[in-house]
Amino acid sequence: MPMPFLQSPSPGLLTATILVLVSGPAFASGGTGIAEQYLDPARRIMDHSLSSVDGWHKLEELCDGIGHRLSGSPRLEKALNWAIAKMKEDGQENVRGEPVKVPKWVRGRESLTMHSPQEYDIAMLGLGMSVGTPPEGITAEVLVVADEKELEAAGTAPKGKFVLFNNPMPAYDEAKGSGYGSAVRFRHKGAQLAAARGAVACLVRSVTAKSLRTPHTGAMSYGDAGVRIPAAAVSIEDAEMISRLCRRGERVRLTLKMEARDEGMVDSANVIGELRGREKPEEVVVIGGHIDAWDVGHGAHDDGAGCVMAMEAINVLRKLKLIPRRTIRVVLWTNEENGLGGGREYARAHAAELDNHIAAIESDSGCFAPKGFSVECADPAREELASRQLAEIVRLLEPIGATKVSRGGSGADISPMKPAGVLLMGFSVDGSRYFDYHHSHADTLDKVDPKHLQQCVAAMAVTAYVLADMPDRLGGPPTRSPENAAADSHPDH
Amino acid sequence: MPMPFLQSPSPGLLTATILVLVSGPAFASGGTGIAEQYLDPARRIMDHSLSSVDGWHKLEELCDGIGHRLSGSPRLEKALNWAIAKMKEDGQENVRGEPVKVPKWVRGRESLTMHSPQEYDIAMLGLGMSVGTPPEGITAEVLVVADEKELEAAGTAPKGKFVLFNNPMPAYDEAKGSGYGSAVRFRHKGAQLAAARGAVACLVRSVTAKSLRTPHTGAMSYGDAGVRIPAAAVSIEDAEMISRLCRRGERVRLTLKMEARDEGMVDSANVIGELRGREKPEEVVVIGGHIDAWDVGHGAHDDGAGCVMAMEAINVLRKLKLIPRRTIRVVLWTNEENGLGGGREYARAHAAELDNHIAAIESDSGCFAPKGFSVECADPAREELASRQLAEIVRLLEPIGATKVSRGGSGADISPMKPAGVLLMGFSVDGSRYFDYHHSHADTLDKVDPKHLQQCVAAMAVTAYVLADMPDRLGGPPTRSPENAAADSHPDH
Repeated sequence: MPMPFLQSPSPGLLTATILVLVSGPAFASGGTGIAEQYLDPARRIMDHSLSSVDGWHKLEELCDGIGHRLSGSPRLEKALNWAIAKMKEDGQENVRGEPVKVPKWVRGRESLTMHSPQEYDIAMLGLGMSVGTPPEGITAEVLVVADEKELEAAGTAPKGKFVLFNNPMPAYDEAKGSGYGSAVRFRHKGAQLAAARGAVACLVRSVTAKSLRTPHTGAMSYGDAGVRIPAAAVSIEDAEMISRLCRRGERVRLTLKMEARDEGMVDSANVIGELRGREKPEEVVVIGGHIDAWDVGHGAHDDGAGCVMAMEAINVLRKLKLIPRRTIRVVLWTNEENGLGGGREYARAHAAELDNHIAAIESDSGCFAPKGFSVECADPAREELASRQLAEIVRLLEPIGATKVSRGGSGADISPMKPAGVLLMGFSVDGSRYFDYHHSHADTLDKVDPKHLQQCVAAMAVTAYVLADMPDRLGGPPTRSPENAAADSHPDH
Repeated sequence: MPMPFLQSPSPGLLTATILVLVSGPAFASGGTGIAEQYLDPARRIMDHSLSSVDGWHKLEELCDGIGHRLSGSPRLEKALNWAIAKMKEDGQENVRGEPVKVPKWVRGRESLTMHSPQEYDIAMLGLGMSVGTPPEGITAEVLVVADEKELEAAGTAPKGKFVLFNNPMPAYDEAKGSGYGSAVRFRHKGAQLAAARGAVACLVRSVTAKSLRTPHTGAMSYGDAGVRIPAAAVSIEDAEMISRLCRRGERVRLTLKMEARDEGMVDSANVIGELRGREKPEEVVVIGGHIDAWDVGHGAHDDGAGCVMAMEAINVLRKLKLIPRRTIRVVLWTNEENGLGGGREYARAHAAELDNHIAAIESDSGCFAPKGFSVECADPAREELASRQLAEIVRLLEPIGATKVSRGGSGADISPMKPAGVLLMGFSVDGSRYFDYHHSHADTLDKVDPKHLQQCVAAMAVTAYVLADMPDRLGGPPTRSPENAAADSHPDH
């Protein structure tokens, strides 16, 4: 039974609002009429979601009870078992873990100390997948560069030194977005660039625009570099201090100690649970997030909330007895942060049924006010058609403001399904604060507004329900891409 | 020679602005005409201050080169010597350290670990002057209360437990200010309150409204409590997590380890330097801040910047050859944070000349956009008169927006001079961000805008110059308070 709204307009008002919206001229003239057919279930789903505390309780259990959960850690194991147990409790079908091999990278103890002009503990976090240092650490002078160009201009100066990439991430901009995409490259490949110039270790300014002496970790890569040097992120404050000192001509000496180590590949799993379709159960709408998280904070926004949105979306639908024509499958991918093992394995293991994947929706941008969805497809024509159809469907979400549809960009975990022609969708939320917390000790539950979680669950549940239930397939019949055809003929690659 | 403005209107424009302001009807009708007489030097001081990088270089040396500096630490010793050397280099007179005994409290290593429902390192900082724990730490369950009322209602529940005061500091409000004054009481006396109920240790939510898992330390006091229990601040995030867990009925067990110890009283000093007056050198305008800082971050806003504003104010005046009628004395007090030893000792050692203290101005609210001054005096009539006169004088600061004069409240270090009837003034700045950084690892130089430092130096230099040079004494002739008369007859108490 739908419960009354707690933090939203009354159900009656909401229904009236949607009616006006979906029957307006713009909608009626070019539309397929899909949205009109789902006015009632959309209202019921939103009513229920916006008054339910079930999602919040799930996120509390995950964040406060288990906490962060890096691939290969006992905490991730606990989280996988928790998610399976929760979905079984909720009465979901085919609840299981699907085996995935993941890397086990262990941080160990770590420190970065400045020796001159003062003895000072630098706020740092080793980068994920970095090698460690010898037990006595690495002691050297530091050279600060802003970017690749300055590194090149430094000639042989980096040899035997720490290289610090002090490249600031711009503040969030409503039009341009976060600026993360560009600044993050030094975290990814800084160690390769610095090692090529003879540096003994790589330091990067944390990829964030706000800091209270807050280091942010994240994955780095050695590519095929012959020499692997340790890499760590330092807080904005410390990057700026070291830069100021060097500009003044001080020789800044540091000691980096990292016990970081690679313990090889270990067992993990993608967690799956389903709301089986009533007519075409073999056709699937995938919704999900990644269950692993960096080994700091709670992994609340990244991506505990994304997992809970998906788990709770089918919980709401089942409670309301809204069983769609097709199956809605929750997938909680493992190992997004440092390998994408879960996403790759899901696409591999389910290659034979990807033609039956109507869409795959990932939420991995945190839990803030919902904005809408992005649509991505290997076939541009399907992407175009699907995004137009979706733009109509999400008018149902006008009461919670999630009506924006954009093209391109979806989610890391679903990206391995792109070559098979699957329609990929990314859930979009207000992006102004995500990178303040991302990969830091500050990605904790208190940063999530319970009201936003309710709204995100509502948006995910309505959208998944309509896509799984509407008579025609979103974006029209599937197309096979050449990559997919190739993959099919060599199923083991 | 005045240098051109770098980040402000041109000197010509500035002069025109001041002329309009100080010769307007409101000013002319009720005024003493003081401001008109200082138009030219005020313009020159502002011109110079707003284009000089000398203050910024001083603050860089203090923050980056020496860093934090708690009473009794070798770093504070270094900072005292640095300040003396700097003022001598600047050509100041009577530069010296005046001996002060200060407590040496040492933090040592410390940690707070949650054991259930998950193993989690809590972000914490022991409170200043707290006792430590036994080496094995203190392990107990935690009881969360919001305030004194909830503690009382808990009856005997706190016995044998940690008490966590989870009392939120309200966000900054333009009208009401910071909310620090009320929330800080649990940091001060929480340990007394909790010990009285049989608690084994006291935890307080950090006194700040913003956090990226940022603990804030500060002084606590045992008063005359018979039992002294350790006390520590935890981040907002962790206070909220523990509170959520307890609300859900979890029994949260913690282990607190603190090596904190009191190493007794040791030698320190107030640093003094003067711009000697040309006519009445025995009459003194004191300006200053406190040179000690908590043992985290750089002590940039609290109160390195306040020290530099004062040092730089007389540096600017001397460079411009603006030697006032009376002496301007820079005092950099020691031990403001955990004892007020410097402030007390200055008032005691200079008791005989306090009648000749025209005013004492402290800057200890950080370095942000300057707003004006508060005025405080044991004699309300003098406070009233002085604040009216000051309101005219600070119209000279209109180009930098520092024209607000309020009554009551000045600075901790100058407060011991209040009983002697000295006119006390607090330098006011934009207070919206100070407590985001205060007493935390994030009080670092990057949080200071160089332009604000220039403006604050300008405001301090103009005001000190006018007060030291104007023919009549601010607030009229001094009055002796009964407390001061009593203090004079018992000079050793």
